[in-house]
Formats: sequence, structure tokens, C-alpha cells
Amino acid sequence: MSDLPRSILIREDGPREGFQALSTVVSTGDKLRLINALSTTGVQVIEATAFVRTDRIPQLADASEVCAALPSGNTIFHALYLNQRGFTAALTHKTLSLEGFAMLALSEEFLKRNNNRTIPEALEDLRKFCHLFQAHNIPFDRLMISTVFGDALEGKKNAEDVLALCRRALQVISSEGMTPNEVTFADTTGWGNPEQVKRLISEFRSEFPAIHPGLHLHDTRGTGMANAYAGLLSGVTRFDCSVAGMGGCPFAPGAAGNIPTEDFAFLAEELGVSTGLNLEKYIECAHLAQEIAGRPLPGKLKDGGLLRVFR
Amino acid sequence: MSDLPRSILIREDGPREGFQALSTVVSTGDKLRLINALSTTGVQVIEATAFVRTDRIPQLADASEVCAALPSGNTIFHALYLNQRGFTAALTHKTLSLEGFAMLALSEEFLKRNNNRTIPEALEDLRKFCHLFQAHNIPFDRLMISTVFGDALEGKKNAEDVLALCRRALQVISSEGMTPNEVTFADTTGWGNPEQVKRLISEFRSEFPAIHPGLHLHDTRGTGMANAYAGLLSGVTRFDCSVAGMGGCPFAPGAAGNIPTEDFAFLAEELGVSTGLNLEKYIECAHLAQEIAGRPLPGKLKDGGLLRVFR
Repeated sequence: MSDLPRSILIREDGPREGFQALSTVVSTGDKLRLINALSTTGVQVIEATAFVRTDRIPQLADASEVCAALPSGNTIFHALYLNQRGFTAALTHKTLSLEGFAMLALSEEFLKRNNNRTIPEALEDLRKFCHLFQAHNIPFDRLMISTVFGDALEGKKNAEDVLALCRRALQVISSEGMTPNEVTFADTTGWGNPEQVKRLISEFRSEFPAIHPGLHLHDTRGTGMANAYAGLLSGVTRFDCSVAGMGGCPFAPGAAGNIPTEDFAFLAEELGVSTGLNLEKYIECAHLAQEIAGRPLPGKLKDGGLLRVFR
Repeated sequence: MSDLPRSILIREDGPREGFQALSTVVSTGDKLRLINALSTTGVQVIEATAFVRTDRIPQLADASEVCAALPSGNTIFHALYLNQRGFTAALTHKTLSLEGFAMLALSEEFLKRNNNRTIPEALEDLRKFCHLFQAHNIPFDRLMISTVFGDALEGKKNAEDVLALCRRALQVISSEGMTPNEVTFADTTGWGNPEQVKRLISEFRSEFPAIHPGLHLHDTRGTGMANAYAGLLSGVTRFDCSVAGMGGCPFAPGAAGNIPTEDFAFLAEELGVSTGLNLEKYIECAHLAQEIAGRPLPGKLKDGGLLRVFR
């Protein structure tokens, strides 16, 4: 077990990924019930909502109300944004810890549909984000690259494709005098396998040893936990997860949520990797998420339970 | 990828594991619909049913009817049995390929409850099974050892515990002039993690190089696919799976089925490991299994779909 990290940082994306994906709009009160419960689990970072176009994602139209009512305490709350307008909206909420975050995609077709940007335009946006972060005295916390293993629009991608885009992006960022603390590789579509994860992380780490690699894995085809395990074996210490595996897209049957936070944290702890999470509390949160979602959610630990001996 | 096996044998346990676990009794016709569909997927072995006590498992009381109507073709059909009476019942069905199979458990408390045997009694049974196999001219195909990573009755187990029981069992079998072709390690309860899988398989292979290790993994806590991947990395070539992940126990909420056949086969194929399965047909079977089960089943590939590019 010696190559596994001693501890990892898990970010809880459920309130954003999950509530955005439901076909019904969850009440602000229910969202806050889950967020409050999650904030007692020891999870360090919660992505509470997103400042995005409410005409496209009405499920998150209450982002401001959610942010205004976030609990105080040690939990760091983020809100996703995709452009300067979203960043500016997030800025107004002192309950949020503003993350210097920007996003690219390896699949340009995906980027066009999801973010309305070509890759050159998105790279140019990185420069603007650098200026924005500098104007607000925040570091470039992380760059997320989506669809790193491929998608249905452009097909399979390999590690060299990802690294080539990384180089271009990091060159833009460094030309502005900044370096991202983390590059998060997102398997947005469930196209990845564990050997691809290992290869990508290994090549990235040897080329960019000063930048943390992170993983954001959607479990669309059942490979998510194997991919996450491959990430642990490769020394990845930052993972985006979603309570009970909530997420996916109501408009795209088959799109699945991130790997379930409590299942992944259980795996990590069993491997001797510390997560800081109280799994009993997390299981309660998974049940609450399922109750609010109003349908069965994929996480297993909430039903299987922790390892206990009954005599 | 060089350490991964080039090809693996997947055994489909869904019709036995899955139908046994439903709280309702599925009609013989529906069972045969699924078995017939599975027999067209390229899967080599299907565990069609079990000859067990019908007062305890009424869901499989139609074992004889199922066996009488099994399709002809290249598929090998097995039926589970736990004792001589079950073996003798299975013998009467020429549609079955009789497997020289016997079962032990590392957790004696589990063995007492599940098979009504102590470990010494079960070891003595092995001797009787050897005589039975010899009387019917069949080899000792496989020995299954359940609860190899622990259970809620006796707690965690380690590789040395498993190997100690293996030695005792193999000594009995070899004293009767036989050697099992395979020892199947069953994580009956979802207590295992991938590092335990690697350690167990590695130690087993170095001590018993002439016996195939197999894995039978229940996905009770979301670690099943990571454990299976660890098995592939360790060179395991035999896996018991269940279409759509059907299985578990209606009387024990949380007990989960085996890893979903089509999800695991997808993972294997993506890693370059040949399974011989037609995944399109398997996805259809997973939908059929779900329709017959009448509730959502956990397999992901049936919803996520194969990797396809749409432009």
C-alpha cells in the first residue's frame, strides 16, 4: 500500500451536480437541509450551487438564496461559475470562498455546446480569468479540463491529447504570471478506464510536478470506482464526488452522477487513505439526498452499511 | 497493460443469484426468457438455477422445470448445489454440464447459518464430494471459498487466514487423488478492498501455481468494480458476474448482487482483455432482467451505453 497517498481531499459536488440534474426543481429549503447536513460530516469543500444561466438551468435559479443561507463553520463553500458574469455574482456572497477556477474541454464540440466557446476562445478566456483573479487578489486555484478520455462528439482521446492542451493552457496562464495549484481531469462522459487514468496522471506528474492533479469522475458506465482507485494508485489526492452518486442529466438518460462520495471515501479509508469524513454521518446524508431526490440513488454504502461485527 | 490477462472467462450467475434474491417468485417462463437471451450473448457459462431446499428458497422451486427447458447450443449451463442431494438432482438433467463444485466459507458462523456445517464438517464433506465426482467421472472443477475478506459474524479476515483454509481443503482433496482446477474466492459480503484482492491472489498464485484463482464479488459497498480491476491486475481470468448486477437478498436490505456482467465486461474490453461477450446483446439482457425484476437494477452500462461517436 506504500504508493497510496496518506490522505486525500474530497470535494462534495452533490448539491450542484445533483440538484442541477433533477428534472424537478428542489426547494431552496431542501437544498439547504442537505448542505447543512453535509457540512457536519468533516468534508472540507462543498460546491453548493452554480451561478449559471437560469434560463438553461432553472434548477439552480436560487443560487443567491442558497449562498445567503449557507451555514457558518469550517466548511469551505464554492459555487461554480463558467464566465465573468458568474464570477462577479459569486463575488457578492461572503459565505463563499471564491475559487480561482476556470474550465476547458478537450472535446471542442463539447466545449461549444456546454460553454459556447471554441478552444482558442476558451484559452483566451483563461487570460481574462487571470486578470480577474489578480484584480481580486485570489490565486489560480484550479483549471478543470473536461472530456479528457473522450466523448460521443469527438471520440476517444489519449494522454498526449490531454497534455498538449495542458501545455497550451498552462502557457497562457504562466504568461500572465500565474500557475494553477491544481489541474482537475474530468471524465465528464464515463469514457475512461483505469489504465488511461494511470497513464494520464503519470505523464502529467512527470511533466508538471508542481501542480496537483485532481479527478472528477462520472460513473456513466460503472468504471468510476475502478478509475478512482487507479487515481489513488497514481498518487492523486484531490477528488470531486457526489453524495449518493446524485447527478446526471434528466434530459440525457444514461448520463450519470459523480462517483458516490461515501462509497469512494469508504474505499479510500479501507485502503488506509485518510479522508477526514465521518462515514456514519455521510450515510445519513446519502439517505437524505435520496429522500430529497425522490428516487433511488446509486450509492451502495448507504444500503450496505459500514463494516460492523454483530454476534 | 502488459500484466493484464489477454482473455478471461465470465460466468453469468444472474439467473441463480438474481431470481433467488427477489422477494417475488418470477415465473419459469420469464426465467427462461432471460436465460435464452443470455445464451445468445457469447457468455460461455450460465448458472441457470440451484438445487437447494425449496422451503428456504421457494424462488428456485422450479429448478427442474428450468433445467428441462434450457436451450441447446454452445452455452454451458450449471446449477448450484450445496450437498449430495442437490448434486443428485442436478445429475438427472442432461441439459446441465455437471460441475465438480464444492463450497466452504472462511467464516464458520456464516457456514453454519448458510450451509448448516462447521468447518471440520465441511472439510469432511469435501472428501465425500471427491468420491461423488469420482463415481461420476467428473473432475473437481472448483472449490469456492466464501467470506474471504470477512463478514459481519466474524469480522475481517486476511490473506493468511484464507491460505490456511486453502491448505487444509486442498490437503483433503489431494488425499483423495484430486486437485481442483479453480479456487473461487467469494467476497460474499462486500468486505474486500482491492489491495486485499491483490495480496490474496498474489500469495495464492505463488503457493498454488497449478490452480486457477477465480473471483466472485458482491458489490455491497461500491468497491466491487475496483476489486475486480485489482483481480485483473493480479492475472485472475475467471469471474462470476450477474447481469445488470441483479442479486442481493430481499430479507437483508443492503445485500447486493454480484458486479454487473456487462459493466465488468465493458471495463475488461476497454483494458484490452477479451471477454467473448457481445455487449450490445448483453445490454438488451440487462434491460430484460430489469423488466422481469420489476425494479431498477444497479448496472450502469445498460443506461450509459457503449462508446459511440455521434456527429
